[in-house]
Amino acid sequence: MAGNTFGTVFKVTTWGESHGPALGAVIDGCPPGIALSDEDIQHDLDRRRPGTGMGSSSRKECDRVRILSGTFEGKTTGTPLSLMIENTDAVSRDYDHLRTVFRPGHGDFTYFKKYGIRDHRGGGRSSGRETVARVAAGAVAKRVIATRHITVSAATVELGGMAAVTSRYATDTANEFACPDSDAVTAWRKRIADAKTAGDSLGGIVEITVTGCPPGLGEPVFDKIDADLAKALMSIGTVKCVEIGAGLSAARLIGTECNDEMTDMGFLSNNAGGVLAGITTGQDMVIRIACKPIPSVENPQRTLDIEGRRTMISTTGRHDVSVIPRILPVAEAMTAIVCADHLLRQETSRLIVTKVTKKRNTARKNVDMRE
Amino acid sequence: MAGNTFGTVFKVTTWGESHGPALGAVIDGCPPGIALSDEDIQHDLDRRRPGTGMGSSSRKECDRVRILSGTFEGKTTGTPLSLMIENTDAVSRDYDHLRTVFRPGHGDFTYFKKYGIRDHRGGGRSSGRETVARVAAGAVAKRVIATRHITVSAATVELGGMAAVTSRYATDTANEFACPDSDAVTAWRKRIADAKTAGDSLGGIVEITVTGCPPGLGEPVFDKIDADLAKALMSIGTVKCVEIGAGLSAARLIGTECNDEMTDMGFLSNNAGGVLAGITTGQDMVIRIACKPIPSVENPQRTLDIEGRRTMISTTGRHDVSVIPRILPVAEAMTAIVCADHLLRQETSRLIVTKVTKKRNTARKNVDMRE
Amino acid sequence: MAGNTFGTVFKVTTWGESHGPALGAVIDGCPPGIALSDEDIQHDLDRRRPGTGMGSSSRKECDRVRILSGTFEGKTTGTPLSLMIENTDAVSRDYDHLRTVFRPGHGDFTYFKKYGIRDHRGGGRSSGRETVARVAAGAVAKRVIATRHITVSAATVELGGMAAVTSRYATDTANEFACPDSDAVTAWRKRIADAKTAGDSLGGIVEITVTGCPPGLGEPVFDKIDADLAKALMSIGTVKCVEIGAGLSAARLIGTECNDEMTDMGFLSNNAGGVLAGITTGQDMVIRIACKPIPSVENPQRTLDIEGRRTMISTTGRHDVSVIPRILPVAEAMTAIVCADHLLRQETSRLIVTKVTKKRNTARKNVDMRE
Amino acid sequence: MAGNTFGTVFKVTTWGESHGPALGAVIDGCPPGIALSDEDIQHDLDRRRPGTGMGSSSRKECDRVRILSGTFEGKTTGTPLSLMIENTDAVSRDYDHLRTVFRPGHGDFTYFKKYGIRDHRGGGRSSGRETVARVAAGAVAKRVIATRHITVSAATVELGGMAAVTSRYATDTANEFACPDSDAVTAWRKRIADAKTAGDSLGGIVEITVTGCPPGLGEPVFDKIDADLAKALMSIGTVKCVEIGAGLSAARLIGTECNDEMTDMGFLSNNAGGVLAGITTGQDMVIRIACKPIPSVENPQRTLDIEGRRTMISTTGRHDVSVIPRILPVAEAMTAIVCADHLLRQETSRLIVTKVTKKRNTARKNVDMRE
Repeated sequence: MAGNTFGTVFKVTTWGESHGPALGAVIDGCPPGIALSDEDIQHDLDRRRPGTGMGSSSRKECDRVRILSGTFEGKTTGTPLSLMIENTDAVSRDYDHLRTVFRPGHGDFTYFKKYGIRDHRGGGRSSGRETVARVAAGAVAKRVIATRHITVSAATVELGGMAAVTSRYATDTANEFACPDSDAVTAWRKRIADAKTAGDSLGGIVEITVTGCPPGLGEPVFDKIDADLAKALMSIGTVKCVEIGAGLSAARLIGTECNDEMTDMGFLSNNAGGVLAGITTGQDMVIRIACKPIPSVENPQRTLDIEGRRTMISTTGRHDVSVIPRILPVAEAMTAIVCADHLLRQETSRLIVTKVTKKRNTARKNVDMRE
Repeated sequence: MAGNTFGTVFKVTTWGESHGPALGAVIDGCPPGIALSDEDIQHDLDRRRPGTGMGSSSRKECDRVRILSGTFEGKTTGTPLSLMIENTDAVSRDYDHLRTVFRPGHGDFTYFKKYGIRDHRGGGRSSGRETVARVAAGAVAKRVIATRHITVSAATVELGGMAAVTSRYATDTANEFACPDSDAVTAWRKRIADAKTAGDSLGGIVEITVTGCPPGLGEPVFDKIDADLAKALMSIGTVKCVEIGAGLSAARLIGTECNDEMTDMGFLSNNAGGVLAGITTGQDMVIRIACKPIPSVENPQRTLDIEGRRTMISTTGRHDVSVIPRILPVAEAMTAIVCADHLLRQETSRLIVTKVTKKRNTARKNVDMRE
Repeated sequence: MAGNTFGTVFKVTTWGESHGPALGAVIDGCPPGIALSDEDIQHDLDRRRPGTGMGSSSRKECDRVRILSGTFEGKTTGTPLSLMIENTDAVSRDYDHLRTVFRPGHGDFTYFKKYGIRDHRGGGRSSGRETVARVAAGAVAKRVIATRHITVSAATVELGGMAAVTSRYATDTANEFACPDSDAVTAWRKRIADAKTAGDSLGGIVEITVTGCPPGLGEPVFDKIDADLAKALMSIGTVKCVEIGAGLSAARLIGTECNDEMTDMGFLSNNAGGVLAGITTGQDMVIRIACKPIPSVENPQRTLDIEGRRTMISTTGRHDVSVIPRILPVAEAMTAIVCADHLLRQETSRLIVTKVTKKRNTARKNVDMRE
Repeated sequence: MAGNTFGTVFKVTTWGESHGPALGAVIDGCPPGIALSDEDIQHDLDRRRPGTGMGSSSRKECDRVRILSGTFEGKTTGTPLSLMIENTDAVSRDYDHLRTVFRPGHGDFTYFKKYGIRDHRGGGRSSGRETVARVAAGAVAKRVIATRHITVSAATVELGGMAAVTSRYATDTANEFACPDSDAVTAWRKRIADAKTAGDSLGGIVEITVTGCPPGLGEPVFDKIDADLAKALMSIGTVKCVEIGAGLSAARLIGTECNDEMTDMGFLSNNAGGVLAGITTGQDMVIRIACKPIPSVENPQRTLDIEGRRTMISTTGRHDVSVIPRILPVAEAMTAIVCADHLLRQETSRLIVTKVTKKRNTARKNVDMRE
């Protein structure tokens, strides 16, 4: 059943396979009047692009986005935005040997069980390449929330089991990990090189920070903003854990430690991660995601073919060693989409002031140009 | 904006406040022909009920459910089920002093900022009491998935920083924590008693296991079953972290360790937690949630009133010391609702076999009773 | 599959059967701060109530509504409103003879084919009694749109094939048909009395007028406001035709006649019925619905039993002769729900002004009470 | 707010403007395994194409569809289908004079009031060209319902006030009106030629027939299949009236005439139009829509500019004289989408048989290839 749409007011539908002609996103519900050009979106696509950086897939995709609808003279019109990114370096025959084999850790087996048919080329729809459409849509969401000075940034806090020492919230810094700890950056680069040599892959942890978020975003009881963030981020194929604020460690605090006391100077801590009862407090929102290692590894592993016979598999195609750092703009995109959606949802939840205004008693035929 | 509905085919809408006349759930999309009585639901409500067990709130609610629609002669009819639980021991005046004060760690501040108006009595809609409706709806979901022999069970794996030693998956055992480690159970009881004496509160970690789940449930790309589980569980007020399978620790594994190899004996491990690319593998689904300590504590804490003036607060009302064990049926309920929804969604995703059958050329007027 | 919810922002879910304990509606997404009491809803319920007026069912239901959640001290809080109306005069044994027979023109046959099980008592969920929940929800919708001075009123324009002569838009007048043409009212009363004597039933046409609607409500391309009105009104069991503005007769006009020219005095006509390209113009919205005769008739008719055997049926139970006038508040309710929904939807579609305001650089910890 | 998606399980999202680079549709929820090629879609696009036939717009669009995702080796995979049709003959400068003027009967005024910004070129999103995406999606829907031998066909029954004499249900015949009455066809062609000469435009009435529909499709109470059909068809810009079965004339029948009696030979009539209580009976579904005349006319009409000043307008661009016959495939498309959606929805509403089967007690690790 349909599951490729995210959001309620700012509604993103994505489509496309790893080795089809193109991938894309349709955004319905973007407000009118927001300046938007291809270049605004291209910046984040370039951050996610394969073929850049050590340990990255050698697939060469220019990932140029085209805005096919929803803008006029450089501004959004309020009608659906259609964004398309063409596949230009899809080498399908690289995947011929996978037609009848299930790669461990990938969606090959489950797609086959679900549909009885699958596009085996590069994982089809279950490929990480699917996230290119998320990043394009997320770039638009960032423009929407920027109108209220809300920003989203993701930073690496751990890779291959090695944590950064960081005394402050994530900020977008100059290195590929967006990490302020230069020792960690050096160590991570070596860790990735070593894993590549060893024919293996790595996971890591990413922290996302939302600044400038006004209090009041999020809805009781199921559509809490942290619940929607959890879904948004867990829907990224590589993510196995989502934490808000103190996260897992909150379970080990006592109540007086965990509660964020308030004074007229503001909150004295942020264990809540900027969310109370599913609604933003006005503090920064802080979310962490744990990413599993890339399932494609050169080291041979046991698996089955579609007839249920034992076989071995070794992935020698073009693939990354770690989803980090390419996952950073994807995490930002999903977070920005949730924020844009809840920002617009909140517009419908505010007090309607029922002033005694002049009744519109001439409304029937009057064409009021000033409205 | 509307946010009190969960699910797409098996659709649960809840309503009600802590100190209003009643709380309830409307379930739309439950298939017809499923045997269902008040007693089927009452069992789980009793597990969640306050006033039982050490460290629990002394509020005495009998929490009797009434099925107001959607059944006929003991079976569901396919029309909406309306479930209602009346509030009988709501003592609103206990909360008069909270009319103008924000309790730290609660939704008081954020509801006020969102709506400009709030029902301060016991937290209103943001109260943990809201979960009574989830448990009622979850009991119905359990009946739906039971038709395919799918079961959901939750067990405590850590409380107040003390982990159970458990060598096997969670199973519902006889103690209030549903934990097979009797030493842990003894230690946790003491930990709760100590925290109560100290005027403080505790958090913990719960593991939920889904058995019997067929492969193929879950939808690409946003409505992955693990994404929906993450949302469902993070929407419980107390939850700050959701893990699937290896969860956080997956980030520290290398690819060859993390991948679950397959042989004709089945999968050799379950780091995936029963989900690959958002679709069930047929293995058990294993999910863990971290719960923060109850924010209501007797120890005084700094806060503000609605005028922004500093004040202190100490919660002496009826409240629990830890959400565990009462959270167990709530976690099961949300998990069962996700499973029921995806079980029914999958009915629409299967291959339509286009057999060459006799065309219905007499269809116009024929009333076929056998269909 | 779930189909008992209407609306996207102002979201109404109804439940209940003709002969169950109660019927009700849950409204999610109603803005906070709107004054609302039981009495506000009771007025419309009384207009719809059976047992009043000639030709009406003799079932005696007091139809008292209870607001079970979502208000605090007389105002909506922004959380779900739960409205319940108990069935007090349901005489189920009146329907025992219908357990195995399908009444022509009713949903008996189709519910049985759909679900394989049905609540035969009074039609169960397919009963016209279901509309009591719509009327309750519609009364809340009327309060929402009243904050912008939008009003909805329905009037009878034809009954039993006899049209009223009316030179003006529908207004709520003192008679049960809400019709300004007193000759028609007299003729219709006689027509109903005659049909009752003849053991038969009548249909009619109702016109609904929405005044005060601002321009700009409605969404391209599927959720046009007239498309949503068509669905809302066609979802009332008795309705077989929905017209907007010139309606059917628009097909017989030429373009220069049909187009509503504009001058600085306003539109010169209203063939559009207040809607262009699915979006309100600011003129009155005018919608007409055609209602079929009540299918329950005393005159015997041919039908089948659930074994497919021929039988005859004659309905002698308590039922109306015509859905008019009781349908009037139902038509208003559905129209008001559509208007409330689109009024709130429009809040998310307006231009976000991106003023250069002071950046929220102290946002992290500051608790701003003034916001 | 987002309004460009139709359907719940078979979910169609359209995008694109009259003079943008392209238009398209994303279909999410199409079942896997259905044979689908560009040519399958092209046939209906060609029926809708401008530039063919007398009285048609002279815009020359080849309207070639490209399937960008969701198929593999000629079959649907269950993932989203992305369909794109490029605009190749958009002459935007033809519309420069409309930048500041509102055309009567078009969406120019209402889009401007709604968004404060509009793409004036050819009406932008409000253009009839938007329906090209509906027709493409409808062609896929037709393939889905064809798996159950359900067919949809539209026929002209009236044009410019001249009705066809037709003693039978609509069937797709060889002429452009799909009308079996050759006298009417001749008269209509002349009527269109005369209107063109007169600088005016015409409306008409179309009947849509669905054959082979099994009983049981449609959902209580708001998502009745006739309610969804009413929305689907009223959402076509030109439609001002939707009738089901006896439609408007049902209001003038008495109950014993209107009820469709049943015998073991089937229903004796079809005033219901194949729908009782919103659920299909198994008879043909019969729906009629009234289309207003094309609002673009050469004869000058009074209107306003965006400053509210009086002006005159005369449309000399490329446009049709009547939406008929080009509307026929559009009406079929929307009808087919509703049928496909309800066919798939019904899959979730059937009785789950709870057989006592062998419990899946070895489920945890077993990889069952045969499932």
